Amino acid sequence: MWQEEIELKAKKAKRASRKLCRMSTEVKNRALTSIAEEIEAHKPDILSQNQKDLDQARASGMSPHMLDRLVLSEERLKSIQEGVLTVASLPDPVGELFDMRTLPNGLILGKMRVPLGVIGAIYESRPNVTVDIACLCLKSGNACLLRGGKEAIHSNISLSRVIREALRRSEGGEDAVQLIESTDRALLLPLLSMKEYIDLVVPRGGAEFIRLVSENAKMPVVSGGIGVCHTYVDRSADLSKATAIAFNAKVQRPTVCNALDTLLVHEAIAQEFLPRVAQEWGRAGVEMHADEHSFSILKSLQDVKVIPATDSDWGKEFLSLTAAIKVVGSLDEALEHIGAFGSGHSEAIVTSDLKSAQKFLTEVDAACVYANASTRFTDGEQFGLGAEVGISTQKFHARGPMGLKELTTYKWVILGSGQVRP
Amino acid sequence: MWQEEIELKAKKAKRASRKLCRMSTEVKNRALTSIAEEIEAHKPDILSQNQKDLDQARASGMSPHMLDRLVLSEERLKSIQEGVLTVASLPDPVGELFDMRTLPNGLILGKMRVPLGVIGAIYESRPNVTVDIACLCLKSGNACLLRGGKEAIHSNISLSRVIREALRRSEGGEDAVQLIESTDRALLLPLLSMKEYIDLVVPRGGAEFIRLVSENAKMPVVSGGIGVCHTYVDRSADLSKATAIAFNAKVQRPTVCNALDTLLVHEAIAQEFLPRVAQEWGRAGVEMHADEHSFSILKSLQDVKVIPATDSDWGKEFLSLTAAIKVVGSLDEALEHIGAFGSGHSEAIVTSDLKSAQKFLTEVDAACVYANASTRFTDGEQFGLGAEVGISTQKFHARGPMGLKELTTYKWVILGSGQVRP
Repeated sequence: MWQEEIELKAKKAKRASRKLCRMSTEVKNRALTSIAEEIEAHKPDILSQNQKDLDQARASGMSPHMLDRLVLSEERLKSIQEGVLTVASLPDPVGELFDMRTLPNGLILGKMRVPLGVIGAIYESRPNVTVDIACLCLKSGNACLLRGGKEAIHSNISLSRVIREALRRSEGGEDAVQLIESTDRALLLPLLSMKEYIDLVVPRGGAEFIRLVSENAKMPVVSGGIGVCHTYVDRSADLSKATAIAFNAKVQRPTVCNALDTLLVHEAIAQEFLPRVAQEWGRAGVEMHADEHSFSILKSLQDVKVIPATDSDWGKEFLSLTAAIKVVGSLDEALEHIGAFGSGHSEAIVTSDLKSAQKFLTEVDAACVYANASTRFTDGEQFGLGAEVGISTQKFHARGPMGLKELTTYKWVILGSGQVRP
Repeated sequence: MWQEEIELKAKKAKRASRKLCRMSTEVKNRALTSIAEEIEAHKPDILSQNQKDLDQARASGMSPHMLDRLVLSEERLKSIQEGVLTVASLPDPVGELFDMRTLPNGLILGKMRVPLGVIGAIYESRPNVTVDIACLCLKSGNACLLRGGKEAIHSNISLSRVIREALRRSEGGEDAVQLIESTDRALLLPLLSMKEYIDLVVPRGGAEFIRLVSENAKMPVVSGGIGVCHTYVDRSADLSKATAIAFNAKVQRPTVCNALDTLLVHEAIAQEFLPRVAQEWGRAGVEMHADEHSFSILKSLQDVKVIPATDSDWGKEFLSLTAAIKVVGSLDEALEHIGAFGSGHSEAIVTSDLKSAQKFLTEVDAACVYANASTRFTDGEQFGLGAEVGISTQKFHARGPMGLKELTTYKWVILGSGQVRP
């Protein structure tokens, strides 16, 4: 019965997508504004539904960290509303003409940006994702089929009703946003087989879950989220900046994919730099797994938790206050280490040398490559995309934070005056 | 033993791709020029190897049409060389920076175009495809693993040796182009599982073959090639142009994917237009499968082969001198028919009405949408891309003819001056 309901919702989304792909920017922006207003109007209801989720989660013994992800507060709802209005303010990607040219035979040829159709999003606890994805899909002319985590089900149902109410009020067409209300895992496989109705699936969650989705989906999948991130401090680095960047990348939010996992340090500055960063990290409670060289530098420091690194530390996503440290003899050795152990998510160099920066930016094969900034910036909102549907670590179709443009494709349009092929 | 050889070649290609992705435009263009020169220098050898393929094909009773696809002549080699030099003359897509912006915090952010890595191409008889794909991959910084059809194996071995010789001579790195010399079908499955080494597979061939590849490949696939193409003649069409376009789209080369399959005609001009196009088509030997309305108009014409259409004619790719004809009451009815029966390849309208043209171009969901031109133009060379790796009818990553740009992806590059996330 749930399976039939999912299929019905997928069909409705497909039908809605045919209307949505031609909807004017004005109507779409009105619908988005209306969503922000409806969230305001239904605040007490949303918060009380969220309370139900929180009560259940607490009763089931959820960790404080996970609980925090689940919380909706007045302040968080405000920031969700602001996000919606930001998406409304962004340029509409649909209909954009690009790569236009006139051929010698007079044909005018180019590409027109168009929506993909129906986006299937499968995600975990944070309820704001429901609004983020619904709004990005709407603005980019796509319908969406949302399947959130069971921990947030009351919040998600409440938010999706508010969104659909806003769509109804603003001629947006409520069927453009569909929430699957059953969170039974057994329903994932039937969902992933509905390639007739769903054009793209974006899974968000742990590595195991993403593998499950990728291996079973019959439609294209954009996946990512696993981030083994390196920051390489070059011999020419400004060491104050390097310390601040390494500190931010590791400590500001250690449980996410764009946090630092391994610090690579050029040997020429290791003796001076490593104690500085280790003392800062030490104060924040970071445990360091150091290679032989860096261990010899750090072992005698006070208030620094350092143990010798083992082979399994390289290429590990720690998702906690733990960092691996390795001293390298050159930029090339750093590049080689990143090539061997990076996951293609976010990698950074700290350097004052333009040539080193250029070499790093050009040669590192990852979704986001930084010079002199924290990898923690890898995020759709931080990148100015309004929000993100997910972060892709694959090379195909979209890479890095996926905003409006990444939810589109193109078609070739050709304007002739009677041309035939000779 | 063959399987090991394929794996070895795939590994070599992957290694070569790491060098190739950083190769300068000058070196790549020198390699391309050198390929054109080597083809010239080895003409007698290439032609004699091609002769072996032709002898075997004739002995096995290959149809004249298929034989023609296999032939290399002095003239065709000349046109292949010209194609290579055209690719050399095109702008290098690699390293292009786009979508650049400066964020309020001073981060400079944008996308850098980069190669995909290793392209696996699996194709059928025409030996020129070997050169086309090798050169497009080279220019776009990708290594390639080629697997051509068994009918052209001697020609392909000869051409790939010439290409590798040219790469050796020009510091291009011969391993960038690998030809699999066994055409045993049993080796397809192991090839399609090598996702460690192959980043994208492009299959070219019949529907059955493409399905086999798509369903078994562990890496991304861009597929297409099946074209159910409609030309809709609007009530406002210039009927001379419409006749010329419909004639060209059906007759100029009926065995290919971008040829016309169904002609849709507005009822207001059906009585005048249909006899004109039917007489032209009749002279060229086109068999017409007409719906009731068009049959009543055409049945009494001299020298016109017309039979009543059946349901199976709609949405059929004829690949021969056969066309289905249907009279529609409006542009909307034409759009609905195309939505229901098109394969998302190439669709055209002939009209003098700007609003109808715009509506058609905007609303038809296909890789290539034409106003007032023949669908036969859907082709990388015709579109000014130099050549094509294939024609995609999927929405994901690339759509329509795939040239240099479609063989690339991007990475985000972020230039900071010490920024950390607040």
